[in-house]
Amino acid sequence: MHPNDPHLRSFIDVKADSDFPIQNLPYGVFSTASDASPRVGIAIGDYVLDLAALQAAKLLDLPDGVFAQPSINAFMALGPRVWSATRARISELLRHDNAELRDNAALRAKALMPMRDAKLHLPLRVEGFTDFYSSKEHASNVGAMFRDKTNPLLPNWLHIPIGYNGRASTVVVSGTKIHRPHGQLKPPSADVPSFGPCKRLDFELEIGFVVGQPSARGEMLSEQQAEQMIFGFTLLNDWSARDIQQWEYVPLGPFQAKAFATSISPWIVTREALEPFRTHGPAQDPAPLPYLQQQGANNYDMALEVALCTPKMTEAARISATNFKYMYWSSVQQLVHHASSGCAMSVGDLLGSGTVSGPEKDQLGSLLELSWNGTQPVQLPGGEQRGFLEDGDSLVMRGWCQGDGYRVGFGEVEGTVLAAK
Amino acid sequence: MHPNDPHLRSFIDVKADSDFPIQNLPYGVFSTASDASPRVGIAIGDYVLDLAALQAAKLLDLPDGVFAQPSINAFMALGPRVWSATRARISELLRHDNAELRDNAALRAKALMPMRDAKLHLPLRVEGFTDFYSSKEHASNVGAMFRDKTNPLLPNWLHIPIGYNGRASTVVVSGTKIHRPHGQLKPPSADVPSFGPCKRLDFELEIGFVVGQPSARGEMLSEQQAEQMIFGFTLLNDWSARDIQQWEYVPLGPFQAKAFATSISPWIVTREALEPFRTHGPAQDPAPLPYLQQQGANNYDMALEVALCTPKMTEAARISATNFKYMYWSSVQQLVHHASSGCAMSVGDLLGSGTVSGPEKDQLGSLLELSWNGTQPVQLPGGEQRGFLEDGDSLVMRGWCQGDGYRVGFGEVEGTVLAAK
Repeated sequence: MHPNDPHLRSFIDVKADSDFPIQNLPYGVFSTASDASPRVGIAIGDYVLDLAALQAAKLLDLPDGVFAQPSINAFMALGPRVWSATRARISELLRHDNAELRDNAALRAKALMPMRDAKLHLPLRVEGFTDFYSSKEHASNVGAMFRDKTNPLLPNWLHIPIGYNGRASTVVVSGTKIHRPHGQLKPPSADVPSFGPCKRLDFELEIGFVVGQPSARGEMLSEQQAEQMIFGFTLLNDWSARDIQQWEYVPLGPFQAKAFATSISPWIVTREALEPFRTHGPAQDPAPLPYLQQQGANNYDMALEVALCTPKMTEAARISATNFKYMYWSSVQQLVHHASSGCAMSVGDLLGSGTVSGPEKDQLGSLLELSWNGTQPVQLPGGEQRGFLEDGDSLVMRGWCQGDGYRVGFGEVEGTVLAAK
Repeated sequence: MHPNDPHLRSFIDVKADSDFPIQNLPYGVFSTASDASPRVGIAIGDYVLDLAALQAAKLLDLPDGVFAQPSINAFMALGPRVWSATRARISELLRHDNAELRDNAALRAKALMPMRDAKLHLPLRVEGFTDFYSSKEHASNVGAMFRDKTNPLLPNWLHIPIGYNGRASTVVVSGTKIHRPHGQLKPPSADVPSFGPCKRLDFELEIGFVVGQPSARGEMLSEQQAEQMIFGFTLLNDWSARDIQQWEYVPLGPFQAKAFATSISPWIVTREALEPFRTHGPAQDPAPLPYLQQQGANNYDMALEVALCTPKMTEAARISATNFKYMYWSSVQQLVHHASSGCAMSVGDLLGSGTVSGPEKDQLGSLLELSWNGTQPVQLPGGEQRGFLEDGDSLVMRGWCQGDGYRVGFGEVEGTVLAAK
């Protein structure tokens, strides 16, 4: 059976609401108390399967040591055929009716560990980080707030998947605490800027995708080439300092407002695992220029949620629920455009979708939009409210594609805000 | 004697107008016909000195293999004390009155080769590339052309060293040919954009500096810390597609207009070698915020030239001659600002100064300014003229600091424009 077959079952018990059934098999990097060296594993139910251990046991036929390292980059460099074959083989090894791993108690003891006992690391070495701006609703909301209510979209937006280069050195894994950044602030009321802690700290709910194959400098990409270069997807929180951004961003774009941290989920869900959940994105009108045109379903039906927990709250409260399918520009269109000038793409490039906002008020992917730039604070259970994030706030994003009786999910990306240093 | 002493002489004959006297000793990466593996060397006169060979001969006391690799990153990671001690030792080995290398014919045959026989590679692994916009003259010229003649500087410019993240994957070494990029173009006359070869291809004359020590996420830098983190400087040509840039850059800044190529010179001149040429930059008014304030001479007196050679010309003609000392924001201020939000800096980060333009008409660092957006084409010997670069044009940048009877220079960064693919 194909590794995406809904009828597949593993000998490992997986609950129906788990993000990690045998149909998912996302890649991550982990270490354990007994072995502190980070290595590549996949998530299955509540367990991590150590792929370095499987390879050492000769159950995976791949170049030596490809999983015995602190990133998935070496594995990604092997290319799409190997990605598919490896996923199929791991699926086979986890099936309820396959004895190779199931009945090898010694190997199971070595290679399977409860996820709660594993330390999860940044899964890839991020070569470059690029962030897009591809939700029409988000771009329209921001445009209406800061530019022109009646005509919020800039003229280029419907023609170009607008994006900018971000900072790769500060991409961190879920659970990493985030210090409130300092920066230059100049509220409209002030005559001159001052330097101090950001007062309008925000999150941006995004999906990131990971480039697993390189392209050469000077080379453009077809839709098919770009598709084949995408290894997988992750949840991404593009932390944003709105007050720093507002003062610094003309004319060269966001810089320090986005440079202090970008958080991603520990598990990279493969493009192949998401295939059953393909759907059409919004109709694109005007038609994109030929180099950006796509055939078929170019988006994914993926539920996304944001929850916030303040120091006074006992459990996180959902503040937004949206869907990746609302994105106007697709990941493939973003990648094709990124390489359109001849920009060389690298194994390990991380591209962010841009804030995922839907059409409804409760589907917005940032506090900037949810609180309409702080003017309509979000009401929280217990009576607190938030215009922007405060010290001690913990933000959690979740995402999954719902199958019939199972879900293919990302786990979560969590980040807690610490006071400025 | 200190390695910067003007009276130092080498047993290797160095002409007075050479960029590479014993007072310079810039680092690069090279290979040869007899040994194709790229390794670290320094330039002395018309020769390259193989530092891997010196280390193998036990003349340099450093960690094994630090120079036997295709980048200077491992050496930079050793820190400023090692940078100084190593430069002092290499200076000692090259002195006219030191016999260790001078009288070791076998080692000289092995370690010293004519530069013309060496292939020069990209000297560093570029971890991140950031480009600034720190010439007041350049920013004013661009502002006057595209925004407001009477008030060309944006309000934030005098307060922030404005910069943006560029694309590290397309930084290339001098001599690399540059294909004219494709992109979305929408001249003011057109109603809708079209996709095709850039029609307004330009260069930007810049100085790049290389970060040789890391900083931690969440950490800010003092002036002194930033100073100590700078390993050295290089010539940088920030190739720019003006027509792509004009259509794409709002609101998130330049993206594909700058992503196709950035060329640097093969030799990294150390910060230490430039010390004798320190000078004051322009007075900064209003005074920078405290975190950006500097004591003492924060710039360098460095002559910079741009020459252009079209296919019809027999030799390159100088089209601009300016000086790095005109830059309003210093390299240290740029680095301090870059880390001010808590952005982690990495060994191998490359930061571009921004276009170096001076106050005079013949001191402008881009064709955009020299031809005033194509309206006043540059006249070339032989009767040709250029508003922007044409296919087959070769652009050469040179830079040096003039001492008494010697100069500390960069060599050149050359790039030839090829037709769009």
